[in-house]
Amino acid sequence: MNYRMIGRINAFILLIEGVFMIPALIFALADRDFTVARSFVITIGAIVVFSGLLLLICRRAKRGFYAREGFVCVGIGWILISLFGSVPYWLSGQIPNVINAIFETVSGLTTTGASVVPAVEDLARAINYWRCFTHWLGGMGVLVFLLAVAPIGEQSEGFTMHLLRAESPGPSVGKLVPRMRRTAGILYIIYILLTFTAFLFLLCGGMPAFDSLCTAFATAGTGGFGVKNDSIASYSPYIQNVCTVFMLLFGVNFSCYYLILLRQVRSVLKDEEFRLYWGIVIGATLLIAWNLTRVAMYATFGETLRHSAFQVASVLTTTGFATTDFDLWPTFSKAILLCLMALGACAGSTGGGLKCARLLLLLKALRRNIGQLLHPNSVKVIHVNGRQVDERTIANTNAYLAAYVAILLASFFLVSIDNVSVLTSFTAVLSCMNNIGPGLDAVGPSCNYAGLGALSKIVLIIDMLAGRLEIFPILVLFSRRTWKRY
Amino acid sequence: MNYRMIGRINAFILLIEGVFMIPALIFALADRDFTVARSFVITIGAIVVFSGLLLLICRRAKRGFYAREGFVCVGIGWILISLFGSVPYWLSGQIPNVINAIFETVSGLTTTGASVVPAVEDLARAINYWRCFTHWLGGMGVLVFLLAVAPIGEQSEGFTMHLLRAESPGPSVGKLVPRMRRTAGILYIIYILLTFTAFLFLLCGGMPAFDSLCTAFATAGTGGFGVKNDSIASYSPYIQNVCTVFMLLFGVNFSCYYLILLRQVRSVLKDEEFRLYWGIVIGATLLIAWNLTRVAMYATFGETLRHSAFQVASVLTTTGFATTDFDLWPTFSKAILLCLMALGACAGSTGGGLKCARLLLLLKALRRNIGQLLHPNSVKVIHVNGRQVDERTIANTNAYLAAYVAILLASFFLVSIDNVSVLTSFTAVLSCMNNIGPGLDAVGPSCNYAGLGALSKIVLIIDMLAGRLEIFPILVLFSRRTWKRY
Repeated sequence: MNYRMIGRINAFILLIEGVFMIPALIFALADRDFTVARSFVITIGAIVVFSGLLLLICRRAKRGFYAREGFVCVGIGWILISLFGSVPYWLSGQIPNVINAIFETVSGLTTTGASVVPAVEDLARAINYWRCFTHWLGGMGVLVFLLAVAPIGEQSEGFTMHLLRAESPGPSVGKLVPRMRRTAGILYIIYILLTFTAFLFLLCGGMPAFDSLCTAFATAGTGGFGVKNDSIASYSPYIQNVCTVFMLLFGVNFSCYYLILLRQVRSVLKDEEFRLYWGIVIGATLLIAWNLTRVAMYATFGETLRHSAFQVASVLTTTGFATTDFDLWPTFSKAILLCLMALGACAGSTGGGLKCARLLLLLKALRRNIGQLLHPNSVKVIHVNGRQVDERTIANTNAYLAAYVAILLASFFLVSIDNVSVLTSFTAVLSCMNNIGPGLDAVGPSCNYAGLGALSKIVLIIDMLAGRLEIFPILVLFSRRTWKRY
Repeated sequence: MNYRMIGRINAFILLIEGVFMIPALIFALADRDFTVARSFVITIGAIVVFSGLLLLICRRAKRGFYAREGFVCVGIGWILISLFGSVPYWLSGQIPNVINAIFETVSGLTTTGASVVPAVEDLARAINYWRCFTHWLGGMGVLVFLLAVAPIGEQSEGFTMHLLRAESPGPSVGKLVPRMRRTAGILYIIYILLTFTAFLFLLCGGMPAFDSLCTAFATAGTGGFGVKNDSIASYSPYIQNVCTVFMLLFGVNFSCYYLILLRQVRSVLKDEEFRLYWGIVIGATLLIAWNLTRVAMYATFGETLRHSAFQVASVLTTTGFATTDFDLWPTFSKAILLCLMALGACAGSTGGGLKCARLLLLLKALRRNIGQLLHPNSVKVIHVNGRQVDERTIANTNAYLAAYVAILLASFFLVSIDNVSVLTSFTAVLSCMNNIGPGLDAVGPSCNYAGLGALSKIVLIIDMLAGRLEIFPILVLFSRRTWKRY
C-alpha cells in the first residue's frame, strides 16, 4: 500500500476544504458574528497545521498507485473532510452535540440532506451557508475537484482513473475524453455553469440572493438542505417549478451535457439511461397525480401536478426538498416515492441511490438469464447503447445490489434497537443510504433526525458515506485483504 | 415446445390431486356434511373428465423435453392444481367468493398460510383437512411426487432432471443419487417419516388426533394453516415446543437427512448451509429474547425464550404459525423477524424465501468481488463445502436476487393502490412472496387477508406462486422467448 501517496492526497483534500471555508468566514465577519467567525478561523488553522504535518511526513511518495489505493484514499478522505467539516458546527455552539455535528456534515457532504437541526432559521447565516455549500462540494466530489485543479506531481493516467472511479457514482466513468484529468475539469465547468444558471433563475423569481445561492448549491448537489424551516413550501410556485426542473437536470448523467456541448444531441436522446430516467419521471409524476386527484388532495389539477412533479424530482434525484408533507399522501403515492428512493438518479450525476444505469444493467442481465435458463447452451452478450458490456461490469453490478441489500438490512436492524416504528427505522436507513434526506413517519418531511439515538445516528452516518461512495470504498476499509502486504 | 408431453404430465398432476381429495371426502361423509361431500365429489369428477380429455388429446407425445418444457410444465401445473383445488371451497359455500377461494388454495399449496378465513373453527372438518393437506402436498411438490410414484413412459434422465429442477427450491438440486427418479422417491420417504414422527409427538402431548394430523401437515409443509382461530397459542407449551423443533427440522435441506441415513453425519455437520442456518436460528432467538427481556414482555425468561424460539422458527422456516401477536413486540424484534422473513430456510427444504444457500453464495460472490476490485487481475473461484461452484450458478443466484427485488417492489406498488398502510402492503407482499403467512400491521398474526381488495389478492396469489416456484417458472410463462418456435 502506498501510504505516503494516500497521505499526500488527503492533505490536499483537506486544504481544499479549508479554502472553501473562507467564504463562510467572510459571511460570519460581515454579520459581525464573532463566535462563528472564530470557529471557522480555528478550523482553518487546524486544517493547515494537520495538512502541513501530513505533507511533511509523506514527503517522498513512491509512484505505484492502484485500484486498492484509490478506494482507500477516497474512503479515508471523506471521513477526514467530514470530521474537519463538523468542527465549526460544534465549536460555534450552533450544533453543540459532536455526533449531531458530524451527522449534519456527513449529511451535507454526501448530499443527503437529513438534518438534526429542528429550526434552520435559527442558525447563523455563515453556518447556513456552510451547510448548503457542503452539498455543492460533495455533489461532484472533492477528489474530482482536486484532480481538476491541482497537479499532484506528474502521475500516470492510471492514478487519476483509480481516484475518479472510486469517487464518481455509477457503474463506470464514461471515458468522456481520452485524458482523465481533462474529464474532471470538464465535469466541474459544466457543474459550475449549471449551478450559476439555477442561481439566476431563482433570483429572477424574487428569492433573496442569499437564499438563492444556498438553494442553488443544495439543488446542484441534489442535497436538500434549505434555509427555511418548511424547506421550499413557502416559496412561490415559480420557484418550486424552477427547483423541479433543476433537480431533474442535476440528476442527468453529466456526460450527456458534454455531448450536447459537442452538438451530439442525437446520441443523448438515444441514450438508454437518459430515456429510462425521463420515462420514470413522467410515469411516476402522472401516476401520483392520478392518485392524488382521486383522493382530492389539492384544489386544482395544476397544484396537484406541481406537487407531484416536485416530489418525484426531489426523491428520484435524491435531493430531498419538500413542498408538502408527502407522509400524508395515500399509500400508493408513498409506495411510488419509496421505490424511487431506492432507485435514484442517473450514473455520473450528483444524485445518489442505486442509479438508473444499474437498473438497466440488472434488467438486461435478468432477461439474459431467463433466456439462458430456457436454452442452457446459448451464449449472449449484453449491449447498452449499442456497445457490448464487459462481463465484469455485470458481475460488479450484481455484487453491488447484493451489498446494497445486505447493508440496508443490517442497518435497519441496528437502527430498530432505538424502538422507533418499523416504518421510521426502515425509511430512515433507506433515505440515508440513498442520500435523499426525509423518510416517512417520524423522519418524514415535516420532522427530522434529532429524535434518534446516538447508535442510530452513527449507523446512518456510515450508511450515508457508503451510499455516496457507492459502498465499496467504505467496505474496502473494513476488509482484511486491503491491509495485507503483498 | 413439446405441448403434448406437457399436457400429459399436467393430466397426471391433476389426477394425483383428485386422489388426494378422497380422504377429505371421507371426512365429509363421516361428519354427514353432504354439501361439502357433494362439492368434493363434483371436483373429483371434473378432474377425472378434464384429465381424461387431456390424455386423449395428448396421446402420442414426442420425446424431446428440455429446460424450457420443464419450467412451463411446472408453471402451468401449479396454476391448474390451484384452480381445481379451490373448487370445493366455493362450491361448498365455505368460502363463497371465488378469488378468496383461489387465494386460500394457492396459500395452502405454496405453503404460505395466509388466510382470508376470519374464523377457521367455523369451517367444516373436511375443509379444514383439505386446507392443511394442501400444505403437505405443496411442501415437497406435486411433480416430485409424480416422479416418485408414476412411470410416465420411459423417459431420459434429462426429463426427470428438468422437472425436478423447476419445482424444487434452492440454487440446485444436489445430486443425491445418480438416478433422479430414485431421488424423488427418497425425498418423499424421508418427508412421510418425518411428518409421521411429528404427528406422534403432537398426539403424545394430548392434542386431539384430527388437530395433530392437520398440524403435522402444516408443520411438514412449513405452511402455517391451523385449525384454531388463535393458531398455536392456546395449546400447551409442550406442543408449542414440539412445533418449534419440527418447523426447524423441516427447514433443513432434505439431503442432510439422506446423508444421516447413510451415516455420513460428519459431512452434514460440516455443511456450510447447515451451519449458517442453525447459527441464524440460535443468534436470532437469543437477540429477540434479550430484546423482549429488556422490555419485560413476558413473566419468566423461559416463556420469553419459548415465544422467541417459536417465532424465529416459524418465520425463518416460513411456516407462519403464531403463539403470540409479535406485531406488539418492540421494533428491534420485529426488524429481526422481517429480515428472517426475507431470508427463509435451507435450499431443498419445504420452506420458502431467498434460502440460506443463496445468502451464502451472495456473500461469497460479494467477497470475491471486493477482492477483484482491489486486485483487478486476480481470478478466484468460489467454493462451497470444498467444492467449486459453477460460475453460471453464481450468475443465476445474482439474477434471482434481482428478480426477487423487482417483483417485490412491483407488487408492493400494486398492493398499495388499496390504500392500506405502507407497512401492511409491504409486509403482505414480503410475507406472501416468501410463503410465510402473517405480516405486520393489518395483516399481522392476529389479523388476516380478508380486508384486502381483489387486485391485491390477485397480485399476492401471483407472488405466492412466484415465491414457491422460485420466480423463474412463473416469469418464463410471461416471456415471449418461451413461446417462440425454433
